[in-house]
Amino acid sequence: MRKPEHPRALLRAMFDAAVAAAAPDLCVPAHLPSPPRGRTVVVGAGKASAAMARAVERHWPGELSGLIVTRYGHAVPCERIEIVEAGHPVPDENGMNAARRIRQMVEGLGPDDLVLALISGGGSALLTLPADGLTLGDKQAVNRALLRSGATISEINCVRKHLSAVKGGRLAAAAAPARVVTLMMSDVPGDDPAVIASGPTVADPTSFADALAILKKYRIREPEAAIAHLRAATDETPKPGDSRLTGNRAVMIATPQASLEAAADVARAAGVTPLILGDSIEGEASEVAKVFAAIARQVVAHGQPASAPVVLLSGGETTVTVRGKGRGGRNAEFLLAMAVDLRGAARIHAIACDTDGIDGMEDNAGATIDPGTWARAEVAGIDLVARLADNDAWGAFSVLGDLVITGPTLTNVNDFRAILVTD
Amino acid sequence: MRKPEHPRALLRAMFDAAVAAAAPDLCVPAHLPSPPRGRTVVVGAGKASAAMARAVERHWPGELSGLIVTRYGHAVPCERIEIVEAGHPVPDENGMNAARRIRQMVEGLGPDDLVLALISGGGSALLTLPADGLTLGDKQAVNRALLRSGATISEINCVRKHLSAVKGGRLAAAAAPARVVTLMMSDVPGDDPAVIASGPTVADPTSFADALAILKKYRIREPEAAIAHLRAATDETPKPGDSRLTGNRAVMIATPQASLEAAADVARAAGVTPLILGDSIEGEASEVAKVFAAIARQVVAHGQPASAPVVLLSGGETTVTVRGKGRGGRNAEFLLAMAVDLRGAARIHAIACDTDGIDGMEDNAGATIDPGTWARAEVAGIDLVARLADNDAWGAFSVLGDLVITGPTLTNVNDFRAILVTD
Repeated sequence: MRKPEHPRALLRAMFDAAVAAAAPDLCVPAHLPSPPRGRTVVVGAGKASAAMARAVERHWPGELSGLIVTRYGHAVPCERIEIVEAGHPVPDENGMNAARRIRQMVEGLGPDDLVLALISGGGSALLTLPADGLTLGDKQAVNRALLRSGATISEINCVRKHLSAVKGGRLAAAAAPARVVTLMMSDVPGDDPAVIASGPTVADPTSFADALAILKKYRIREPEAAIAHLRAATDETPKPGDSRLTGNRAVMIATPQASLEAAADVARAAGVTPLILGDSIEGEASEVAKVFAAIARQVVAHGQPASAPVVLLSGGETTVTVRGKGRGGRNAEFLLAMAVDLRGAARIHAIACDTDGIDGMEDNAGATIDPGTWARAEVAGIDLVARLADNDAWGAFSVLGDLVITGPTLTNVNDFRAILVTD
Repeated sequence: MRKPEHPRALLRAMFDAAVAAAAPDLCVPAHLPSPPRGRTVVVGAGKASAAMARAVERHWPGELSGLIVTRYGHAVPCERIEIVEAGHPVPDENGMNAARRIRQMVEGLGPDDLVLALISGGGSALLTLPADGLTLGDKQAVNRALLRSGATISEINCVRKHLSAVKGGRLAAAAAPARVVTLMMSDVPGDDPAVIASGPTVADPTSFADALAILKKYRIREPEAAIAHLRAATDETPKPGDSRLTGNRAVMIATPQASLEAAADVARAAGVTPLILGDSIEGEASEVAKVFAAIARQVVAHGQPASAPVVLLSGGETTVTVRGKGRGGRNAEFLLAMAVDLRGAARIHAIACDTDGIDGMEDNAGATIDPGTWARAEVAGIDLVARLADNDAWGAFSVLGDLVITGPTLTNVNDFRAILVTD
């Protein structure tokens, strides 16, 4: 056990370990099924799904073909699997066409064939195919109304699945009698396979009646075509136990929790006690920062909830209510708020990054802070309080030279935060 | 070790232990100094100071006299010490007159006399005496401008002390050559004696030049009388090492941390692992609630940062940005936001109360939630999401029968929150 003599390097090593634990090249091969007697068709959607497809290609012993839809800028070159880029978070025609082709591709397979589905965060918007008789506009209108209404994510998912031709297990049902093995990366609280990308290959316990009840609860009465579809449709999503899904399985190959555990291993090897506070922390970034700053101060002042050296690890996705005109994602904003709260407090260092390598709309994955941040900002003439009020965390950390830049990591298990308290 | 079979009773026992640890009748007698050869004069200010005075009267072996200023409604009957009630958080004439009389009372004492100062939260507003040539209006104008400017509490305190005739150690300097022993209750982060009630009996390291620099930094140029006073005055606050303060001492008899430790003892005796996350958690109540809900869920899902049964303990003072028209203090709002976030999650119970017994402007100290809160609200026809949007936590918990009502406890070590995760 050695002391954390270079806190910034140690924090960066923890983040790198978190990303590596979710790297497709590492976690896809370990979970590949045996090749089938028949054909293998690879399909999927999500921000990490192209990189997952490349990992399949590199390690798959037999023939394969397929189609993957990923976000613009997230394609990687594949030889046998076609990669299509499409719109996210707002679906577009590219995504719809890819979803239609994916559905056609799995229809007509036989019992000896295998569908390998590669699903990751963002797949719900990327793999969009309205049910017969509905338009993309209908689906989007319902979606917007639900988001405004305060409905929970599981309520929104229930409605989405019943307006779609691929979500809620419909893709797997279309593939029957072929067996479907799904490899999934989670970026959602609870890591529920039925939630990630709205579960295109996973049984759905909810019904058309449930979807109608949700729209009624939130007084959503338009568009008429969508309501009429929910009332008249009879082709339910496949339920748990549905014979069309027999023999299928879904494997969670990367999760926020597994990445936090990997970072915890790095901490322990450096003689630092890891405390994993949550794999799905949510809330306004600048307010969450105050809570974490207070916990770090408690370690300094009272050796609680554990004695230093300690690292507080957490995942999940904070939000930023934009009020200013500056630049910066939620991770940089979190750190800027922490730096303002701590005002140079000794012994407290932190890193916060998006594991996908892109914090918001900028070029950085995140940033770091340390006990010298406040003083260095004063020397540089940067008013951190004013920058925070202007949501200009990227600007502040750019001048300070404290941005963490990795480029797209081609994986995504949401945000990673580590707060190191040295002794 | 027994299991927490009655979570609500256990949570209430923890809160009661936290309050008891700060009860003047318990913690004043243990810290009383030996009686002096000469007179004993008891002075002080704060929400708990009248109750502290009563505890002194009950246990003091010799003669004494004195004057205490407390908040309206916080007086308790004393026989030898006069109790005056005054305005808080906005100072008034009653407070000013009491401060002037207190200062006169300690002037002219001799080296064999003792001043026993009883200081608790709220004392800064209650013990207000502008420096010669200034009005209460001048002080208040500067104070308002500083609060609007984003100045830190230590910057605000520096300016306050240099516009006052009693703060920043001036009361102790006026008492010299009498010895001053100060018994303090803390309701501030860091428990700094120079911060609580702006430290009337404690040396002040800051100067008139510092105060002027702070006003310049925040571009505060009015009122003219206050600026002129800071430029022209020569009677500095007593600095550390000032001979007038030799032999004085300040004892912290109650702190948020000590109250959390008392609650932790109750938890341990019940076989529950206590994790003290912070004695000074700040931030918007509803956002802090999301973070704590996520940590509680991590205990349930992964046994981290510790295995259940666990109780997450914290102190400090959250804030509520009022947007609705409902009723309720910050502790009830915190719990309502937690209940909305948890939506009936199993195994998670919580209590949040102000240790002074009054949550905001209502009649309750706080409230409790449990896994049944969400379902009971549905049965009762209470929409918890709508109540939260309307800041109507008191209304919601009142209908649910889950308010915690204690009446004024006559002590104050800020808020108390305990989140119990059963196994």
